[in-house]
Amino acid sequence: MSETGWAIALHGGAGVMRRETMDAAREAEVRAGLAAALAAGREVLDAGGSSLDAVQATVCSLEDNPCFNAGHGSVMTSDGTFELEAAIMRGSDLAAGGVINVSHIRNPVSLARYILDHSEHVVFAGAGAERYAAGAGFELISSGYFETEMRRAQFNATRASGAVTLDHDGKRYGTVGAVARDRAGSLAAATSTGGLNNKAPGRVGDSGIIGGGTYANDKSCAVSATGRGEAFMRMTVARDIAAMIEYGGVALADAVERKVMTELPVINGRGGVIALTRTGAPVLQFNTPGMYRAAQCEGEAAQVAVFAL
Amino acid sequence: MSETGWAIALHGGAGVMRRETMDAAREAEVRAGLAAALAAGREVLDAGGSSLDAVQATVCSLEDNPCFNAGHGSVMTSDGTFELEAAIMRGSDLAAGGVINVSHIRNPVSLARYILDHSEHVVFAGAGAERYAAGAGFELISSGYFETEMRRAQFNATRASGAVTLDHDGKRYGTVGAVARDRAGSLAAATSTGGLNNKAPGRVGDSGIIGGGTYANDKSCAVSATGRGEAFMRMTVARDIAAMIEYGGVALADAVERKVMTELPVINGRGGVIALTRTGAPVLQFNTPGMYRAAQCEGEAAQVAVFAL
Repeated sequence: MSETGWAIALHGGAGVMRRETMDAAREAEVRAGLAAALAAGREVLDAGGSSLDAVQATVCSLEDNPCFNAGHGSVMTSDGTFELEAAIMRGSDLAAGGVINVSHIRNPVSLARYILDHSEHVVFAGAGAERYAAGAGFELISSGYFETEMRRAQFNATRASGAVTLDHDGKRYGTVGAVARDRAGSLAAATSTGGLNNKAPGRVGDSGIIGGGTYANDKSCAVSATGRGEAFMRMTVARDIAAMIEYGGVALADAVERKVMTELPVINGRGGVIALTRTGAPVLQFNTPGMYRAAQCEGEAAQVAVFAL
Repeated sequence: MSETGWAIALHGGAGVMRRETMDAAREAEVRAGLAAALAAGREVLDAGGSSLDAVQATVCSLEDNPCFNAGHGSVMTSDGTFELEAAIMRGSDLAAGGVINVSHIRNPVSLARYILDHSEHVVFAGAGAERYAAGAGFELISSGYFETEMRRAQFNATRASGAVTLDHDGKRYGTVGAVARDRAGSLAAATSTGGLNNKAPGRVGDSGIIGGGTYANDKSCAVSATGRGEAFMRMTVARDIAAMIEYGGVALADAVERKVMTELPVINGRGGVIALTRTGAPVLQFNTPGMYRAAQCEGEAAQVAVFAL
C-alpha cells in the first residue's frame, strides 16, 4: 500500500456463513459479485476519480446484484413490502446524505449522493424522500423490482416459523457498504440495505444514520458497518471508531478490535465493519463466522473473502 | 452541587433572542414554561425517581406548552403539515428510543420512551412508527392538535417571504430537551422537536438521532442539542462531546466549548447544547444570541435564563 495511492474496501453483509455448509455455486456467485463491485470502485479510483464517486459506484454494483440485501434483492418487511436505507459521507468536509425507508428508488445510495451534492438537508425519510427524489429527476420505480425468488422464499420461511426480524437464513446481517481513499488523500464511506427480514414496517436501522453505520473523516478514517443495526446505533459505531483515533490517538486496527470484538458483543451487537486509515490501510473485522468482503490497494492484488481467515 | 444529589437541565431552543427586542409578556410566558418543565423533572428526581423518568416528564411538559417548537406548538412543513421527531437515551446501559417524522402522536418523547422500554428496535419512522404506537395503545390524534395561531402566522409569513427552512422568527432553532442525573448516579437525555419552519416534507433532523441531538452515557455525560440539525448530524455532536471525555480525558466544559464554539460554526452549525457531567454539574452553551434554558442541582436554587449572561 502506497501512502499516496488509492485504496478501497467493501462488504456485502456479515453473519453465519460457514465453509462447510455454503453451496459452492452460491459462493462462486457471491465472490464474483464482490469482485465486480470492487472493480467498479477501483476503475473510478484508478482513473483519478474521487473516493466519493468510487464508494457510490461500488455500492450501486452491490445494490444491483440480487445476491446482496440492498436494492434489487432486498429483504421484506412483515407486510411483504420494501423499506430501504442508505447513506454516504465525504471525509474532507463531512458532507453527508442519507435516506430512510424508501420503497421506490432503484439505487438508494445514489439518492443519498444527490442529497449530499444538492440539498441543504442531510437526511430524508419515507414519502417525503421519494417526493424529493422525483423532483430531482429520479425515476420512482415499482417496488416489485426489489423482489427476488430467494428473498420471497426466505420471507415465507421466516413467517412460517413465526420468527420476526431475523435476517436472511436466520443469522445474516445483510447490508452492503464501501470505503475508499483517493489519490488526493480524501476518504469516503457509503452503506445501503434492505434492513432485517420480516422487520416491522417503519423500523429504522443504522445504515442511513451518519455516525451509526456510515462515517468518513479525513482526520481519522472511513467506516461502513454491517450487523444488527440497533446495537450499532446505540454505540454510534462508525463515529466511535473515528473518535477513538481523533481523541484517543488509538490506531484504527485497535479501535475496530475494541468496538467490534469487545464492546458490541456486550449488547448483542453481531456484525462487522470495514474501514480505511487516512493512508489507505484496510481493516476488515467481524464477530460473526463470516463477512462477505473485498479490498484492494493501488499496486496490489484484489482480495475477496467470505469466511474468517 | 452534591456528588450524590440529583441534577437536571433543559433547553427550549436557541436562536436570535435579544433582550432589547423581546416582548416582556412573551418572555414571562417562556420563563414560566421553562420553570414548570424544570419542576416536572425535579419532582421525579426529588422523589427518588430515575433520570429517565425525569427527562421524559420535563420534555412532555415542554411538548405540551405552545411556546416551544415540539408537540403542541410545533412548526409546519412546506405542506402545512406536522412531522415531529424525538429521542431518549439511558446512560447506564445505552438503551435508546427514537421516532422520526410522526404526525399523530401527542407526546413523541413518550413514544420514544415506550420503544426504549418495550421494543427490540431503537428507532421507528413515519406511518410505521404510528402503527407501532397504535398497537401499543397510544392514541393517534389529529395533527390539528399541534397547530397554534402563532405557528400558523409564522408559517404564512415565511411562505410569503419565499424563505424556506428558516426557523420561527427567522433564526430560532426550536427544539426542546432535557438531561438529568438521578441520586443513583445514572444519566439520561431526551430531545423533541417539530423541526424547521417550512421544511421540506420528509426532512430528518438530529433530534431523533442517537448521538446526533441526544446522547447519554454514565461513563461520560448526558447531552441534548438544539440548532440547525444538519450540522449537528454531520458532527454527531452529542456523541462527540461524550467521546472527547471518554477517549480524550477532556472535561465536559472544554468538550462543549470546542464543539459548540469552535467546530460547529465552521459548518454553519448555529445552536447550543445542554449537558451534565457524571457527577451532575450542568454545562449550558450556545453560539447564538440566546437559548431558552434552565437548570437545577439538588439543594440549590433553580436557574432560568433566556439571553446570554
